[in-house]
Amino acid sequence: MKIRAAVLEDFGEDLVVQDVDLDGPREGEALVRLRACGVCHTDMYTASGADPSGYAPTVLGHEGAGVVEAVGPGVRDVAVGDHVVCLFSPQCRRCVHCLSPRTNLCLAIREQQNKGYLPDGTTRLRRGEERIRHFMGTSTFAEAAVMPEIALAKIDAQAPLDRACLFACGLSTGIGAAMFTAAVERGSTCAIFGAGLVGLGAVAGCRVQGAERIICIDLSEERLALARGQGATDCWIAGEETVERIVEETEGFGADYTFEATGNVAVMRQAVEAARMGWGLCTVIGVAGKGETLDVIPRFLITGRRICGSSFGGVKGRDRVPELVERYLAGDIDVDPLVSHHMPLEDVNRAFELMHAQDGIRTVLELAG
Amino acid sequence: MKIRAAVLEDFGEDLVVQDVDLDGPREGEALVRLRACGVCHTDMYTASGADPSGYAPTVLGHEGAGVVEAVGPGVRDVAVGDHVVCLFSPQCRRCVHCLSPRTNLCLAIREQQNKGYLPDGTTRLRRGEERIRHFMGTSTFAEAAVMPEIALAKIDAQAPLDRACLFACGLSTGIGAAMFTAAVERGSTCAIFGAGLVGLGAVAGCRVQGAERIICIDLSEERLALARGQGATDCWIAGEETVERIVEETEGFGADYTFEATGNVAVMRQAVEAARMGWGLCTVIGVAGKGETLDVIPRFLITGRRICGSSFGGVKGRDRVPELVERYLAGDIDVDPLVSHHMPLEDVNRAFELMHAQDGIRTVLELAG
Repeated sequence: MKIRAAVLEDFGEDLVVQDVDLDGPREGEALVRLRACGVCHTDMYTASGADPSGYAPTVLGHEGAGVVEAVGPGVRDVAVGDHVVCLFSPQCRRCVHCLSPRTNLCLAIREQQNKGYLPDGTTRLRRGEERIRHFMGTSTFAEAAVMPEIALAKIDAQAPLDRACLFACGLSTGIGAAMFTAAVERGSTCAIFGAGLVGLGAVAGCRVQGAERIICIDLSEERLALARGQGATDCWIAGEETVERIVEETEGFGADYTFEATGNVAVMRQAVEAARMGWGLCTVIGVAGKGETLDVIPRFLITGRRICGSSFGGVKGRDRVPELVERYLAGDIDVDPLVSHHMPLEDVNRAFELMHAQDGIRTVLELAG
Repeated sequence: MKIRAAVLEDFGEDLVVQDVDLDGPREGEALVRLRACGVCHTDMYTASGADPSGYAPTVLGHEGAGVVEAVGPGVRDVAVGDHVVCLFSPQCRRCVHCLSPRTNLCLAIREQQNKGYLPDGTTRLRRGEERIRHFMGTSTFAEAAVMPEIALAKIDAQAPLDRACLFACGLSTGIGAAMFTAAVERGSTCAIFGAGLVGLGAVAGCRVQGAERIICIDLSEERLALARGQGATDCWIAGEETVERIVEETEGFGADYTFEATGNVAVMRQAVEAARMGWGLCTVIGVAGKGETLDVIPRFLITGRRICGSSFGGVKGRDRVPELVERYLAGDIDVDPLVSHHMPLEDVNRAFELMHAQDGIRTVLELAG
């Protein structure tokens, strides 16, 4: 079939929305008619050429949601008509990581996915004879995608897909970091550095976990207003005094949990140093630039602070994304204010411009009727 | 009373063993007749002047054990004749940290102790009118010491004090890091960087916890032989390839638990990078030089590695040191090979020389008949 898709032809250039060929699903795969897709920093990062593991041509996009239109042989867990969120972080339920409660990093298709292929080492995307590689196993800046069923989370059909798509990446990443990676305890004091979608998700996750005090730090008053809406109790403009202020306002100890959601290594260091003596946990969520390091004064560790990282919020996607969507439908998670702009696929480059200008939290592309 | 004690008069100079005055115990304090004291790197570090928080004159020593000879008013938990291990890391059982299972960093007397005073802000050590400050709340390079009872762990009188003293610092620090801070799970793969007393203790702790594979890395074949005696299954000479080798020999994943027991920040980085994708925990035990940082590539965190630190092995001293001594008496922990040299207090500077020459694991000073 022919679909419209946004193709990264050359690093540093605009994406080119065009017709490409999409082959039907093979063993264990499903064809998803995409309805909506959030535009995430990782898409822009890859398009820029800054990611050394990037490749082109490829169809970008990974924060998608849609409806299953066809399934290949052997598919058991999704059926035609199911509403699904696309998972760049799959869950095979069989590998040593899926079988452990300690990690969500499924190993089943990692190698092929990182190279741009579906699990069998081929692509369903092409332009005539020319193969086009998949991006993050998803390629959802398109009207449809073929993906392995282990990368599809079946969700309640009541959930609007232009909201549900945010659970495919940024929102689950932030909420999950608080709920699953850090497992914030009731009554805690939390500090979240950065109020983009991931940081706002972490604020929401801390609130859901019953944190007593939620401090959010960002450079933008507008984003901090959104943080307050997600449950932040204290919203501060970022500055050099941030760590001292957190320590001062916590009887000299620091915050029980800190979250870094900017990708800036200097901010990561602040998040480590603002964590509580004795047991404070700093969760790094942001993705740093290549070659950058988080420099830790070991004394902060010896006196009880801990550091961990979170990928996709520690969320085992097929199990947890449907649950998070249920909590959204139940009113526990307020997604609407996080969608700043809607636009058609043809305007994808404008979405990148808005992101570059830090205008709004998330642009959602509307992909089909 | 007059006691013989090793006094740090000036940084960078030999300690001077001499008579000093020791006043009797006040409220909540006990007089301990010391029998034995290990010589630890922290003593040498302070004597060198490298520790910016150091002060002089002071009586050094903090790895001591002895017998209670007198108690001050209000002392309830120790009595004359009790055998005790001296705790630089006390346990008041009342502060917010003592009441939490998450940390052993008692807050009760921290501030005064760091300044060289007993909890009431005075000293029991003096030379005539001249006050001499206490070191780490202990000052056990001496025939006797006055300490708060919250810093004394009452142990089984069957335990030889020239072995038990090692539980006052280095040995408990290593064993505890594996048992309490990391809480190593049965069947795990562990890697310990450094086979000094702390690293050897960590090897023993991993064995006690039921680790399946215990890799120990050091520069010295002799120390590695001791590591094998403590339960290490693989002993490797340290090198640039250490991380790759650990990853290779663990199916490409890394070790479930790594421990850093050298204080070298480059080794700390190896310990982070050798920890397992998904859930590996790196426990930093070594004390780094001032101004040095552990530089972490955030990708290692995002893909599931975690970093923590351990002070005194996470051991709540009054509760746990007696238990560890019991395990020694029961034959679970083999202390004898860790004591390399015995010598009288007068030879304390020779003990520093041996340490500087990396001759042996621990020198124990014999302090009284």
